[in-house]
Amino acid sequence: MIEDKNQQRTQLSDLGEFGLIDHLTKNFEIKHKSTVKGIGDDAAVLGFKNKNIVITTDLLVEGVHFDLSYMPLKHLGYKSVIVNLSDVYAMNAEATQITVSIAVSNRFPLEALEDLYVGIETAAKIYNIDVVGGDTTSSTTGLLISVTAIGEVKSNNEVYRDGAKPNDLLVVTGDLGAAYMGLQVLEREKEVYKVNPNSQPDLSPYSYIIERQLKPEARKDIIKLLKDLEVKPSSMIDISDGLSSEIIHLCKQSKVGCDVYEEKIPLDPQVISTCEEFNIDSTTVALNGGEDYELLFTMSQDDYSKIKANPNLTVIGYMKVAQVGIHLVTRADTKIPIKAQGWKNFNV
Amino acid sequence: MIEDKNQQRTQLSDLGEFGLIDHLTKNFEIKHKSTVKGIGDDAAVLGFKNKNIVITTDLLVEGVHFDLSYMPLKHLGYKSVIVNLSDVYAMNAEATQITVSIAVSNRFPLEALEDLYVGIETAAKIYNIDVVGGDTTSSTTGLLISVTAIGEVKSNNEVYRDGAKPNDLLVVTGDLGAAYMGLQVLEREKEVYKVNPNSQPDLSPYSYIIERQLKPEARKDIIKLLKDLEVKPSSMIDISDGLSSEIIHLCKQSKVGCDVYEEKIPLDPQVISTCEEFNIDSTTVALNGGEDYELLFTMSQDDYSKIKANPNLTVIGYMKVAQVGIHLVTRADTKIPIKAQGWKNFNV
Repeated sequence: MIEDKNQQRTQLSDLGEFGLIDHLTKNFEIKHKSTVKGIGDDAAVLGFKNKNIVITTDLLVEGVHFDLSYMPLKHLGYKSVIVNLSDVYAMNAEATQITVSIAVSNRFPLEALEDLYVGIETAAKIYNIDVVGGDTTSSTTGLLISVTAIGEVKSNNEVYRDGAKPNDLLVVTGDLGAAYMGLQVLEREKEVYKVNPNSQPDLSPYSYIIERQLKPEARKDIIKLLKDLEVKPSSMIDISDGLSSEIIHLCKQSKVGCDVYEEKIPLDPQVISTCEEFNIDSTTVALNGGEDYELLFTMSQDDYSKIKANPNLTVIGYMKVAQVGIHLVTRADTKIPIKAQGWKNFNV
Repeated sequence: MIEDKNQQRTQLSDLGEFGLIDHLTKNFEIKHKSTVKGIGDDAAVLGFKNKNIVITTDLLVEGVHFDLSYMPLKHLGYKSVIVNLSDVYAMNAEATQITVSIAVSNRFPLEALEDLYVGIETAAKIYNIDVVGGDTTSSTTGLLISVTAIGEVKSNNEVYRDGAKPNDLLVVTGDLGAAYMGLQVLEREKEVYKVNPNSQPDLSPYSYIIERQLKPEARKDIIKLLKDLEVKPSSMIDISDGLSSEIIHLCKQSKVGCDVYEEKIPLDPQVISTCEEFNIDSTTVALNGGEDYELLFTMSQDDYSKIKANPNLTVIGYMKVAQVGIHLVTRADTKIPIKAQGWKNFNV
């Protein structure tokens, strides 16, 4: 029936990921009192007495989310865990367990999967999580990895996307745009390799940005830091799709506006130099690059003194009332509306 | 690196699913005290005070687990939920939440995904579960569905695969082999359709077996029934890969043997007649067909009086000490060892 040419057809690319999930699940009802939070945040929240469980899942598809011509399988295993843990931390929770399912074609030998699982095991060790389940199956083409991560948080300590208030500070961890620029370098080297398989590129000037692409880390340390500093964010999200779309998520769900200062956006020197080399605007990269797996959160200005000396945290703007909108304040002191770049995977 | 021709290559088909999961995860350590049970049962078990959480995940791949030329998307959505709920019930737990992730190529219009989600929503309503999360992404080919199901069970009420004791009764719910024979009929009709697209087959003689293939149900009712009857199984598993491989799982994990009586295996009349039509042995189909989503459990003989009148439950054999092995006692009263048919998906 899928091939019926007469049926009404709406292209998925017209909706994008967020429109699609909203559209498909808008009629779904919540029936269990243990369901504290369903679809619409970094993770779902289930309530059990004084402890809440968060649960989140991600699907990584070969040819869409990763390219095995430059992604070692160990790193892929590691990264597939990290992207899920990042969602758990974005709820202000401690990650405790994961399940890992893979679909794999016969072109992969056992040794390839062993490499993948070494990466998974390494991430599990470093982040102190248990691998508690999974499923392996065959695929007709390529490799697919589905990870579900589970975390724990004391009841009422979880942080959603919808708690930001006007005048709250907008804070980002680490620096942005590096994973995207690492990908640009890897894509360029792939093209060079196609022309001359004997070329030995010197990638050392790009070591940081390539590592950010191939072996990202999740900000478990920030959850501990915020606890130690006694700062509870009013809203939080992890930066997977890019700063601009995450800012829009926080603003829309919290029903607030925002001013973000271009000059405050943290960039690593390697990102700046590589952007110059590729002739790309570094602010555009920081706003839209994605895969940073940093945390973006809002917090009360009253707590500013607790965070101001911390090198991991950068205040990049202020939340406003919804009516003023969401803007980037440029270095030239002009205001540009921040728009979602949308989710381009359906155009691949 | 995956294309390096010099690396050691072990074919995945040499291991099969169970060997593969065991092999890949054998070094994984459990670190959290909330992890009551990790890999190796129908679901993982996480402990929280007097309630345990079970969690299980399954990946369904187009061309491996389903064929859209005869699987309506509504049914596929429904079935993708059912196969996971079945694992939750096999732990003696109540299913409460699911997450659903899909990877889909641009060949699918929105309306196709709406159909898929209608099936998911229908299952969620009927089985009283909340859809709490998910992820949509693109795929380069075909459709892929990953479902994670979460359930709750009172601490110590969960039932594992490893609790069967010699002399326990081996009990199966419903009847077996129907989903497999339904698939044979659908495959045959697909071939007929290829030759003559205008043929209008009369499938009414196969209505039950086709429904078992396209729209299976999970035995939520049995969990309630066992509770009402005050029967706690000593071990339990759901029948997804086929009766013989599930019996082997229970026996190996419980370190027991088993006699299964061919004449006791419950078969629907439509299975028997269709097996005759296709010239296939119905016992072979019941043992190896799979996708029944019935429950297979063991229980103390002391409780036999509680279940003997129940039409949903059939005693098909007895557990023995491990040394005597695992056998089928045929209608001719000969004993044949039951062997795993293995998991053939890697040979697709």
